[in-house]
Amino acid sequence: MKSDIEIARSIELKKIKQVAESVGIPREEVENYGRYIAKIPEQLIDEEKVKRSNLILVTAITATKAGIGKTTVSIGLALGLNKIGKKAIVALREPSLGPCFGMKGGAAGGGYAQVLPMEKINLHFTGDFHAITSAHNMISALLDNYIYQHQAEGFGLKEIIWRRVLDVNDRSLRSVVTGLGPRTNGITQESGFDITPASEIMAILCLAKDTDDLRRRVENIILGFTYDGKPFTVKDLGVAGAVTVLLKDAIHPNLVQTTEGTAAFVHGGPFANIAHGCNSILATKMAMTFGDYVITEAGFGADLGAEKFYNIKCRKSGLSPKLTVIVATAQGLKMHGGVSLERIKEPNMEGLREGFGNLDKHVRNLRSFGQTVVVAFNRFAGDTDEEVDAIRRHCEEELEVGFAINNAFAEGGEGAVDLAGLVVETIEKEPSAPLRYTYEENDSVQRKIEKVACNLYGASVVTYSSASRKMIKRIEEMGIAHYPVCIAKTQYSFSADPKLYGAVNNFEFHIKDIVINNGAEMIVAIAGEILRMPGLPKSPQAERIDIVGGEIEGLS
Amino acid sequence: MKSDIEIARSIELKKIKQVAESVGIPREEVENYGRYIAKIPEQLIDEEKVKRSNLILVTAITATKAGIGKTTVSIGLALGLNKIGKKAIVALREPSLGPCFGMKGGAAGGGYAQVLPMEKINLHFTGDFHAITSAHNMISALLDNYIYQHQAEGFGLKEIIWRRVLDVNDRSLRSVVTGLGPRTNGITQESGFDITPASEIMAILCLAKDTDDLRRRVENIILGFTYDGKPFTVKDLGVAGAVTVLLKDAIHPNLVQTTEGTAAFVHGGPFANIAHGCNSILATKMAMTFGDYVITEAGFGADLGAEKFYNIKCRKSGLSPKLTVIVATAQGLKMHGGVSLERIKEPNMEGLREGFGNLDKHVRNLRSFGQTVVVAFNRFAGDTDEEVDAIRRHCEEELEVGFAINNAFAEGGEGAVDLAGLVVETIEKEPSAPLRYTYEENDSVQRKIEKVACNLYGASVVTYSSASRKMIKRIEEMGIAHYPVCIAKTQYSFSADPKLYGAVNNFEFHIKDIVINNGAEMIVAIAGEILRMPGLPKSPQAERIDIVGGEIEGLS
Repeated sequence: MKSDIEIARSIELKKIKQVAESVGIPREEVENYGRYIAKIPEQLIDEEKVKRSNLILVTAITATKAGIGKTTVSIGLALGLNKIGKKAIVALREPSLGPCFGMKGGAAGGGYAQVLPMEKINLHFTGDFHAITSAHNMISALLDNYIYQHQAEGFGLKEIIWRRVLDVNDRSLRSVVTGLGPRTNGITQESGFDITPASEIMAILCLAKDTDDLRRRVENIILGFTYDGKPFTVKDLGVAGAVTVLLKDAIHPNLVQTTEGTAAFVHGGPFANIAHGCNSILATKMAMTFGDYVITEAGFGADLGAEKFYNIKCRKSGLSPKLTVIVATAQGLKMHGGVSLERIKEPNMEGLREGFGNLDKHVRNLRSFGQTVVVAFNRFAGDTDEEVDAIRRHCEEELEVGFAINNAFAEGGEGAVDLAGLVVETIEKEPSAPLRYTYEENDSVQRKIEKVACNLYGASVVTYSSASRKMIKRIEEMGIAHYPVCIAKTQYSFSADPKLYGAVNNFEFHIKDIVINNGAEMIVAIAGEILRMPGLPKSPQAERIDIVGGEIEGLS
Repeated sequence: MKSDIEIARSIELKKIKQVAESVGIPREEVENYGRYIAKIPEQLIDEEKVKRSNLILVTAITATKAGIGKTTVSIGLALGLNKIGKKAIVALREPSLGPCFGMKGGAAGGGYAQVLPMEKINLHFTGDFHAITSAHNMISALLDNYIYQHQAEGFGLKEIIWRRVLDVNDRSLRSVVTGLGPRTNGITQESGFDITPASEIMAILCLAKDTDDLRRRVENIILGFTYDGKPFTVKDLGVAGAVTVLLKDAIHPNLVQTTEGTAAFVHGGPFANIAHGCNSILATKMAMTFGDYVITEAGFGADLGAEKFYNIKCRKSGLSPKLTVIVATAQGLKMHGGVSLERIKEPNMEGLREGFGNLDKHVRNLRSFGQTVVVAFNRFAGDTDEEVDAIRRHCEEELEVGFAINNAFAEGGEGAVDLAGLVVETIEKEPSAPLRYTYEENDSVQRKIEKVACNLYGASVVTYSSASRKMIKRIEEMGIAHYPVCIAKTQYSFSADPKLYGAVNNFEFHIKDIVINNGAEMIVAIAGEILRMPGLPKSPQAERIDIVGGEIEGLS
């Protein structure tokens, strides 16, 4: 089979204005970024139309290093729905340059289920990530300058929590000391860089209602604490306006097209552990303004992605999906069934059945939100009919959820017609109930964490470091305990231990640290080791990316 | 008078395709970035047309903190030429976000002589600077990762000369230590960040002939030296292709429009001290492909900007200006005449006459290149007629150069009609001779430096630190002594001492350090204190930038 980029190149793209028109976006509102990408002004969102559109969340079983293919299923489902005559639009996250040049490759789908032009989407795209990087580091520079320029007047901060960001995988930048050299090089201090998707600005952009709301949230960002314990914010620095100016284009959703020329929005890309892992609210609502069915995804497995999608993104925006599609693969289930990574490509019915527990637990969790669930089986070349049948029977007979095979990677929309039919039928016959959140706004911070950890993850007890206890106290004193919690933990397990596969239960869940995202309006609870800045592997993908005769090679 | 951004907003912009068509760029070649900005593929450059076009360099007397207004004159001259029926296009550098949010404000001209949309040009524009920042820091990450991943095999570098960049004024990043914390955070080492215009990638982009040449130059970048003294390059790292992919759109010139709807190219923006300070060769040649008169500028005073424009940019591209316009202001001349900064706005004939020496020395220098010179007097509101007359008489009678007043800031093209007439007449009657470079390629490195420092700056002797002597030896051993030299010194004096105004002579010129830019193919000789990363003032411009009712305030 051809590589992703070869397939992408073989497809004749429509002009983006044509794509826009095909879903009813007026031509004159389309702001081109090249011929095949456009920004659509957020002002076009129509809340009445949003209410009438059918939102579908695509999530997955617990992630494996083999990959589950959630993005490919999301795009495939949109293709399939269009194929059976529905007006469907997919809304996805933007890829980050770090993983693209590191290990993972791009994030624009795969095979015949991609969003295009993939090489632009995977590279600088419309510059949203660069704008966020600029805005974030501009705050850093202005903060350090403020301290430097006002030190003679006795100003100082007891603690600085604002770091810097770059959209690159660079382990050397995780922990640095800045301001070395002569006194005119500023204050010497410990600092570090996170990858841009981990920036609070990214989370803010994805949760903001509009530019005014963006500015308000930027003002509220806490940069550090003064010696008398008060938060020092961007408002105190007096530069929220300047930061918002840097983000004024980035806030508008990006329109692209699928491998079959249908509309797709790709906008925002927060990390799915220390942030909420969903594309922007504005992009989802824009897609819902122009599509009858809107497919969106949330990062990593359902424990991380779907939970935050419902409890954070939906709570803040009023969205409520009609259906949740959970993606499973035979290889993934076998891994959760205890089969070693080297052997998951071989047929193994016993290992497969052992792995059903992971899927079952996710389905149970999704139902706790009132969601109707169907399983999309993402078929890989080596999967046997016997394996597929066993999973189908398990889903339909044991779990009593709809089941369909997605083959869009190999066949495009044609390969997702069954799945699309199942989705439409299920939404018509048995749509989800209104969302039931896992916790209430006025639950205490600990109660919120415990409800997620015990009721969804399966922990028996939650313990707290003294640092996190102190921070919870501070949060209560600041009167912001009503924010939702965003639990940062490994994507490889229901627990905080990446080595515990399957459907683990009755573990201790330890909160190491708590971080206030006062602009994003969420409380990040960190469990286990979470890297905010990835590293590169020994042989990074960058060694295989090249441009030959004007054509890019090595992007996938 | 209205502020720059108020004027910018009051002007109804033409669609950029219309602007392109007005100079003969085919519509289908225009790649829109929004409605009013486009990238024009470098492949459209036609060397035959370039040969027939009239290139005009705009340079200035030695810079003062008051500002000389070189960009405003460049744009004004283009407006004036169009006003008198000539097809004129201006080619300028892109502004950097650092100064824009720091002290200086934007860099898109001023008053009624601006390039538009100024708020986009001054902010993220087409993302070129972001692409350069990404490409540069991707190399840093890949380099540090290579050392980290190969240390077990005994690989190491004796010296690393590659730093990182960010497009921000952040003094805290000048000197940092990276790779702190656990061993998995990489190798602990000293490093630092420069501002993006100081990146060698920026210089490369502005000197590259095409994408292949760009890739070749990226491969040649020296990142450090091995323990046996060999250069370690991007080619050794094996990622030149990936870096070029990140720059594949950035290499194409950006088309915008002037306040009077005429075409303007704005592309590339290297520092004018540690780099060569001119917009890209590709943008200049693109403007010359479609314009009969092309106006371009070079950073800072003629000693820095014009010298590098001729000896580096013209030498590498084969370009040769028909005329050089030097911009002078009454305030600037008075400052060079010894008047204190606080009093230069007051009439002072004696101080003014004392300052003529600075202008005279620049004119003499420009003539040494074989250039025909005219003086553009950039009139400020407080200048008296007596002052203006004195300067005119000095130019026409003593210097025997053409003289015209530029009033484009206040009046647009109408205010530059005299200047335009003078320029056309001078080019017709007395065009410049073919360029005479200050030094030959096969002069030794020291000889090159001495020819610039003694013959142009007026130094009596050049001295070298032992570090720079060692580096010169290394350069000779590497067989790259034929590269042109790029002298990095203060823009405020002919000497390396920013406090020596006027037309100083007979000073010692000390070379502190030599840096090899093997990708840009130039040898940077550093004289005096050169900051590659500016700082912010106590009250940065960012405090005054805001967005109110969707409209930006505080950009200028």
